[in-house]
Amino acid sequence: MERASPFPTTEYETRLDRTRERMREAELDALFVTDPANMNYLTGYEGWSFYVHQGVLVTLDADPVWIGREMDAKAAEVTTWLPDEHVRSYSDEHVHSPYDLHPADYTAEVVAEFGLDDATVGVEMDAYYYTAWTHQRLAENLPAADLEDATLLVNWIRLKKTDRELELMERAARIAEHGMRAGVETIEAGVRESTAAAAIYEALIEGVEADGGDYPAIAPLMPSGEFTGTPHLSWSDREFEEGDPVIIELAGCKHRYHCPMARTVNVGDPPREMDETAGIVVEGLEAALDAVEPGVTAESIEAAWREVIAEYGIEKESRIGYACGLGYPPDWGEHTASLRPGDTTVLEEDMTFHLIPGIWYDEFGVEISETFRVTNDGAETFAEFPRELL
Amino acid sequence: MERASPFPTTEYETRLDRTRERMREAELDALFVTDPANMNYLTGYEGWSFYVHQGVLVTLDADPVWIGREMDAKAAEVTTWLPDEHVRSYSDEHVHSPYDLHPADYTAEVVAEFGLDDATVGVEMDAYYYTAWTHQRLAENLPAADLEDATLLVNWIRLKKTDRELELMERAARIAEHGMRAGVETIEAGVRESTAAAAIYEALIEGVEADGGDYPAIAPLMPSGEFTGTPHLSWSDREFEEGDPVIIELAGCKHRYHCPMARTVNVGDPPREMDETAGIVVEGLEAALDAVEPGVTAESIEAAWREVIAEYGIEKESRIGYACGLGYPPDWGEHTASLRPGDTTVLEEDMTFHLIPGIWYDEFGVEISETFRVTNDGAETFAEFPRELL
Repeated sequence: MERASPFPTTEYETRLDRTRERMREAELDALFVTDPANMNYLTGYEGWSFYVHQGVLVTLDADPVWIGREMDAKAAEVTTWLPDEHVRSYSDEHVHSPYDLHPADYTAEVVAEFGLDDATVGVEMDAYYYTAWTHQRLAENLPAADLEDATLLVNWIRLKKTDRELELMERAARIAEHGMRAGVETIEAGVRESTAAAAIYEALIEGVEADGGDYPAIAPLMPSGEFTGTPHLSWSDREFEEGDPVIIELAGCKHRYHCPMARTVNVGDPPREMDETAGIVVEGLEAALDAVEPGVTAESIEAAWREVIAEYGIEKESRIGYACGLGYPPDWGEHTASLRPGDTTVLEEDMTFHLIPGIWYDEFGVEISETFRVTNDGAETFAEFPRELL
Repeated sequence: MERASPFPTTEYETRLDRTRERMREAELDALFVTDPANMNYLTGYEGWSFYVHQGVLVTLDADPVWIGREMDAKAAEVTTWLPDEHVRSYSDEHVHSPYDLHPADYTAEVVAEFGLDDATVGVEMDAYYYTAWTHQRLAENLPAADLEDATLLVNWIRLKKTDRELELMERAARIAEHGMRAGVETIEAGVRESTAAAAIYEALIEGVEADGGDYPAIAPLMPSGEFTGTPHLSWSDREFEEGDPVIIELAGCKHRYHCPMARTVNVGDPPREMDETAGIVVEGLEAALDAVEPGVTAESIEAAWREVIAEYGIEKESRIGYACGLGYPPDWGEHTASLRPGDTTVLEEDMTFHLIPGIWYDEFGVEISETFRVTNDGAETFAEFPRELL
């Protein structure tokens, strides 16, 4: 029994080759990957099982080894290209067991079994779900091993997408457009915020004719009214009121690839200054998109935005975007390149970013975003949705 | 500007008193809490911001201090009862910045500012989002401090609920019932799995007349057909077929309090052995519920279940439930007491559990669950939904 993978095994092999290349550069004999997006990237592993400890052990010569909970071993057999004997699992006694048994103990056994107990093993020190306790326990169980930080090693490889990955992001864009339309159509005075959130969620999962949607790595966010300045607040049971600004940030998701998008809606006629602010945001966004081409730096994209807003007397140095694509909760960002001052990452063809500039005042905020790929002659946005105050 | 909290400040004060009592028992001068559910429990903090580093610093005498990203400080001011000067934030340059600046550096500064740089500080070593890197960096920045493991210190306090918390779980139960109804009504041969997931999501967020729903900490899971043995797989675009077993696991959520529920649906007439298996699961579930009363151990609940299935020749020692309530992605479980062999936690009134037994075969699996509270004379389930194969 296998579940159809969106990628042929050869694509995983290429990812693995590139990972091993970086491992050799970093003088690592092995790499223990716990970020669920990195696990998926290298093996295809899929499942909402990241609430227990799990990981993938990559060596320089053998196939990677999936390590996780017994209950999820079948999902590993079904969703990954790994041979079944490279799916290793710990018993349920290890799960949320206040400390007598920890999954890291089992992981250390597997590391030793592969002859790596005195090896240099990269670990993702700052990745989600790689806890301080896991690290300490691994180190205690592998006293002769050298655990080296390898955070983002795989993430940097993910930055540049293949044609198949770009196609999934295109498909996710159709779903994102559908979700945004559902939000814009539902929001009006007297409607409960949760009702609008429900309509957006429904559209994001129902998807379009060609594709149903997967759960996005972040819930749709929808700060409204006086709360538009608190970007990560979720909806409440408040009813929208005439004049409310509402910022919708969501992503379509297909096979864990995301196309994020933000738009700002005003309930009823917007005040003139909000219209003007939206005009500035769009002008700045488009200037940033125009600045994109292979060979320029990530920070130069932010500079193009900042130059536009400066013309209107607005000063604000901030991150206006980040690399994105494959992701699991709690984030669809890749944590590598950011569009912000000081980031000198050189853009290359087929890198993908979510460009999300915004201007906030005390009374309202405006955010309008696009997800784009770098092409040989500029930025190509994935979604098509009116780039204006709605 | 304040957002209405579901609890009066006095309830947070009681939680804090109990936390400080345990801190004193553990000889801690301070506690740095990073589990988003614990942050919310102590301060009311709400927001999808746990994808960046954040935490709450609890001391023995002063108000707690929220530490997070600048962009989220306003959410902290709006959603917590903390005085504004106890909301401290780091600049955006610290966010996903490959290592030059880390939020733990800023956290260490705040710890020092409160005179705790040579104190014994509890940290949640195995909590979500407390990464190995955060811990190492905190230790480096606070060389005179003693960082002690305090994982689950707050979680154990959360196990026993107050009336207000139980009321939120009641309200979440109405939402869970609504979501399950939507799933059961939508699933039929020829319908795409993602369409059923969309209907469930829509119902969970739209909620009921009294309450809209919040996003649950886990996406609705819906393994079907030959995949019912892979419990954490999410939906696909496959169409349900006549005869498919489908396991739906979901939770209603209100103000971050969950009422989880699982049911098994069969598309069309179920085979006789599936009907029989469902009968055994229900009988075992009810035996387990009957075994609940204050003073008995968590493991005795599992034993009651195991005794029933043994009568049918089924042997399986496993965790059949866990403490639940307040939660953020990736889990609504509290990670403290489990209903499994070896767990000698003594049940007390107003503790809440998700009891989720199941029997799996190669061809199908059956799971039927209930969330219950311990009352002075037994178990009281939150939701009302037919306890049978659907």
